[in-house]
Amino acid sequence: MKIQPTPMNSSPNTFTQQLQSAWALQGSMLCVGLDPDTARIPASPQGKPLGIFEFCRDIADATADVVCAFKPQFAYFASQGAEDQLEKLIRHLKDRHPQIPVILDSKRGDIGSTAEHYALEAFERYGADAITVNPYMGSDSIAPYLKHHGKGVIVLCRTSNPGGSDLQFLNIASDGKPLYLHVAELAAKKWNASGQISLVVGATFPEEIAKVRAVVGEMPLLIPGIGAQGGDLNATVQAGRISNKPGTGMMINSSRAILYAGQGPDFAERARAVAIETRDALRAAAQ
Amino acid sequence: MKIQPTPMNSSPNTFTQQLQSAWALQGSMLCVGLDPDTARIPASPQGKPLGIFEFCRDIADATADVVCAFKPQFAYFASQGAEDQLEKLIRHLKDRHPQIPVILDSKRGDIGSTAEHYALEAFERYGADAITVNPYMGSDSIAPYLKHHGKGVIVLCRTSNPGGSDLQFLNIASDGKPLYLHVAELAAKKWNASGQISLVVGATFPEEIAKVRAVVGEMPLLIPGIGAQGGDLNATVQAGRISNKPGTGMMINSSRAILYAGQGPDFAERARAVAIETRDALRAAAQ
Repeated sequence: MKIQPTPMNSSPNTFTQQLQSAWALQGSMLCVGLDPDTARIPASPQGKPLGIFEFCRDIADATADVVCAFKPQFAYFASQGAEDQLEKLIRHLKDRHPQIPVILDSKRGDIGSTAEHYALEAFERYGADAITVNPYMGSDSIAPYLKHHGKGVIVLCRTSNPGGSDLQFLNIASDGKPLYLHVAELAAKKWNASGQISLVVGATFPEEIAKVRAVVGEMPLLIPGIGAQGGDLNATVQAGRISNKPGTGMMINSSRAILYAGQGPDFAERARAVAIETRDALRAAAQ
Repeated sequence: MKIQPTPMNSSPNTFTQQLQSAWALQGSMLCVGLDPDTARIPASPQGKPLGIFEFCRDIADATADVVCAFKPQFAYFASQGAEDQLEKLIRHLKDRHPQIPVILDSKRGDIGSTAEHYALEAFERYGADAITVNPYMGSDSIAPYLKHHGKGVIVLCRTSNPGGSDLQFLNIASDGKPLYLHVAELAAKKWNASGQISLVVGATFPEEIAKVRAVVGEMPLLIPGIGAQGGDLNATVQAGRISNKPGTGMMINSSRAILYAGQGPDFAERARAVAIETRDALRAAAQ
């Protein structure tokens, strides 16, 4: 089957411009992660089983005015053979909520023509505005995505999980700094000619967010790990803030705490309530 | 859409047992990479356009008696919305060539329930025998795959591309050794309780293959970079060999040089001829 590329986003804005607009217009640094775990999806308001698309759509429609980004997680669609529902979801998001950038969280890491095919998948097939990528294979695993004008490339730097320290926290002999800071420096100083790179830094390590911020200037940070993973929201915002530009610079992700806030027919309202609470807590912390 | 899990492989063998058998029975260390680039797929023998599945099937059927593994590359299917053809291809490989282990090359790198969903995708949805994974997120990005009894987990170590040096060749302060050797040590000494881990080491760096071999004992190595990427075949085999066990220890991958050996209706025969030539060259180098 040959698929038709998704029509180009009608907005001429780059990912970082979309993000700047969303921070300003929405007054929010909250990113809602769309991780539809079929074992946890509640029944529909009518009591019927709810599909992956319908669940994500209802959560997105209920939270679109309180977020700066949506982040569908590829694995939850792939394990269910639900690529068609991911296509439909991103089309819905771009149609109904064009002001909100969409990040495809698939943490790709490959090179040359293989990476070019992943870029086609993310940006043409699915129509995402940005993709997450893994830096282990270096510059030629990042470049193929940057060729797609205006698309965002969000590079793993310091991840929120305990095992992240296995490699990322090893100190490098040349300067004694840990690997994740070398990734931050490569991203900021060598790879970011287009200005479309962001970095992933986990909320579970606020001190390290501050160190990354010191290296990368105003580069946007995607920060997972608040909510279910237990990262400290206030410490995170203080560590990642851009002085003089409060309310910008971060996409702070929450997935499970919002998606599964309710298990009844009011799940979307419950999700909205937790999203508003989280947005407000992030706002307060940014003051 | 809920998909049915692929029936369990009827063989009770683990991935490394399958590989040992394939090395012995097939007398080959050649792995054929199935990277179906639609821009390069030749016409069918009848002159009609050839689908992704049909192309890969014909290549596989023409080379199955000269390889130790097949390695479909996920990106080429994903960019075309051809997941159904990938499912069909792996079912065909397991039906027709059950003696050949199938590696899903998708270089996954994620944690917790997300990684569990990637494992379901690889091993249940697609029925692969092994998967490639990225070590940047550490132990908890490897563990979810190892929970699937007998399935192979092939961890990126020293990749074949120039940019691989950006991170992998940084020396670590504690012992002055480069990052990729730390990955080899973590894989061999901490992560491999099940014995199902292999490592990716590029043929473009034979000296580094030898260093990895010295660290990991008899662990299998998946070696890309011969053929189109220009790695030295003799140097590769000498560097990666297990002394006293010639003809084992490596899955040496070639993709484009075999897949696109011919552009005419005889493409499968041409692919077979290059595969035989490569297998024989690997055999000769292993003496």
